[in-house]
Amino acid sequence: MTIKISIDCMGGDFGPSVTVAAAVSFANREPDVEFVLVGQEAVLQTELKKLGAQNHPQLSIVHASEMVEMDDPIEIALRRKKDSSMRVALNQVKEGQAQACVSAGNTGALMAVSRYVLKTMPGVDRPAICSILPNQKKLPTYMLDLGANVDCEPLHLHQFAIMGSALVAALESKPRPTVGLLNVGEEDIKGNDVVKRTAQLLRADHERGLLNFYGNVEGNDIFKGTTDIVVCDGFVGNVTLKAVEGLGRFVKTTMTGAFKSNPLNILGALIARGALNHISKTMNPSNYNGGSLLGLRGVVIKSHGSADKYSYEWAIQRAFDAVKNDVLARITTSLAELMPVPAEASTDSSGSTEP
Amino acid sequence: MTIKISIDCMGGDFGPSVTVAAAVSFANREPDVEFVLVGQEAVLQTELKKLGAQNHPQLSIVHASEMVEMDDPIEIALRRKKDSSMRVALNQVKEGQAQACVSAGNTGALMAVSRYVLKTMPGVDRPAICSILPNQKKLPTYMLDLGANVDCEPLHLHQFAIMGSALVAALESKPRPTVGLLNVGEEDIKGNDVVKRTAQLLRADHERGLLNFYGNVEGNDIFKGTTDIVVCDGFVGNVTLKAVEGLGRFVKTTMTGAFKSNPLNILGALIARGALNHISKTMNPSNYNGGSLLGLRGVVIKSHGSADKYSYEWAIQRAFDAVKNDVLARITTSLAELMPVPAEASTDSSGSTEP
Repeated sequence: MTIKISIDCMGGDFGPSVTVAAAVSFANREPDVEFVLVGQEAVLQTELKKLGAQNHPQLSIVHASEMVEMDDPIEIALRRKKDSSMRVALNQVKEGQAQACVSAGNTGALMAVSRYVLKTMPGVDRPAICSILPNQKKLPTYMLDLGANVDCEPLHLHQFAIMGSALVAALESKPRPTVGLLNVGEEDIKGNDVVKRTAQLLRADHERGLLNFYGNVEGNDIFKGTTDIVVCDGFVGNVTLKAVEGLGRFVKTTMTGAFKSNPLNILGALIARGALNHISKTMNPSNYNGGSLLGLRGVVIKSHGSADKYSYEWAIQRAFDAVKNDVLARITTSLAELMPVPAEASTDSSGSTEP
Repeated sequence: MTIKISIDCMGGDFGPSVTVAAAVSFANREPDVEFVLVGQEAVLQTELKKLGAQNHPQLSIVHASEMVEMDDPIEIALRRKKDSSMRVALNQVKEGQAQACVSAGNTGALMAVSRYVLKTMPGVDRPAICSILPNQKKLPTYMLDLGANVDCEPLHLHQFAIMGSALVAALESKPRPTVGLLNVGEEDIKGNDVVKRTAQLLRADHERGLLNFYGNVEGNDIFKGTTDIVVCDGFVGNVTLKAVEGLGRFVKTTMTGAFKSNPLNILGALIARGALNHISKTMNPSNYNGGSLLGLRGVVIKSHGSADKYSYEWAIQRAFDAVKNDVLARITTSLAELMPVPAEASTDSSGSTEP
């Protein structure tokens, strides 16, 4: 089965030089993918020519005259730039021309335009960004929200828990994945007001057998793998994710510096290069690039704005795997089981109007 | 000059087996320190005997019959346990028997009891916990609040910025250290409501020449060393700190595993052990243990509850350095310059009443 993915080629800090190059590289090693490259046609043609891929059979171009800038307010992205590469790429999914969309554009804009174009799933108020981080159990820890919602109420965190649970059930074949609520301590008395009220909702779901709520978890539990899913608001999630990525890069710099500091260390590094490659592979934040925008009626993967080609390919990989594993249908089914919805809630509840 | 430090020996996950051992070890290598060991006398005597330090000239014991448990609510610690090792240790500072206090006890309790016993500095509503993290510039990044205040208003974050600025000015001899506000993006439009309103206060101070406000910073800026100080609320700070510590331990486990995985890697590690030692030293979270409770009229250092002896010694080191550098007087002076205070604000504004 061929999987079709639309790429918002103009998004991200480096635009087509990264996005087109990553798509070409991915297509060259994966015969079952086709890309719809969305952006300014002339620019994309130039990029393809540079890569010797003008006539690549797995690539097609859809022109979009505008682009969403990294500092564009959401309003501009949503209401003014109707022919942006981001919006046109998402339209490909809506119209069935692609089964997933990848963008490295402005997070707020991507979330707003995705909600407008694709609508949210029944019962979901706000989509959330969910990514994986590695843990000591050699399994992924799924964490959400990583930046879509900077001000959250308990009902939103509650929905994130349900969506995360549905995603992990679908992707990892775990029928009852464990959910942890990110907090400053394990005890019930710990935390701010929003987190304490969220815990009450999650405990009630746990008692009804709807969710496998573990309880509060702390920052270090992400890497211990205490729970399959870690739930937090988008402010905390985004700051934490970027901090651990920052530390990851710092570790890499420190290691590289240390192993090059004198001939003995260089020799040791050469002999133990197997070990160093393993460490580098496990720790490289690029390998974890690509967050799912959960709760939308379509597969949308957000890449880091600063992703390089290698890192962007990982975001594409997430999109490919999500479609291949039929994640969207499985989440929809799980959500329907976990979250009973009144009939009228089947339209987007975001309050967006025609931009 | 001899520096006297009181130790809350019963605090922390491991109590005297860590706290007393760390004090003995520190005293053995630092002739200019004296410790007042506070806790159940019999228990402390047993511990000292075990270490062959019953008659150590730099150590004395002050008996305290109670102890604050890790899950004691603040009310219990503050109003019921008037003879806790935590409170008695803090009283040593208040009464001039010690110049600093170190505790690994319950953070909330330590903050509340410290505020009650020592009172806050003029103009400070809420003390904050400030620690250092390493950065790529090979300098410390000072970060606060790391867990004392889980619900913050802009005025609190504003005070944290001023206190952090005063601390760095005093400790690092930097008259105008840079302050960054932790956020989900650099742009002014980013962030939640509290952070946006805090930025307005900090920008106003910057324009008046009071603070050197850099602007918003992201999680990765902590390790880039973009600013000398990173300000956030205690919820975000605590989660972030524990997450990076968790990643630090994960890195260590992964490295140890990789370098022991086969004879070639073991050989390489042996040859490059200088590099590995350097990495381990830079990355070991224990070396950064010990947060200052800023804004109190006394030096109080909070150690991690889970600290081992090595790690606890670092917390003692912070207390020692703070007294040696006369940080308290220097912060008080800087605060008075940065934060004009009405006359009646010179008493504790915490609203604590006699417990």
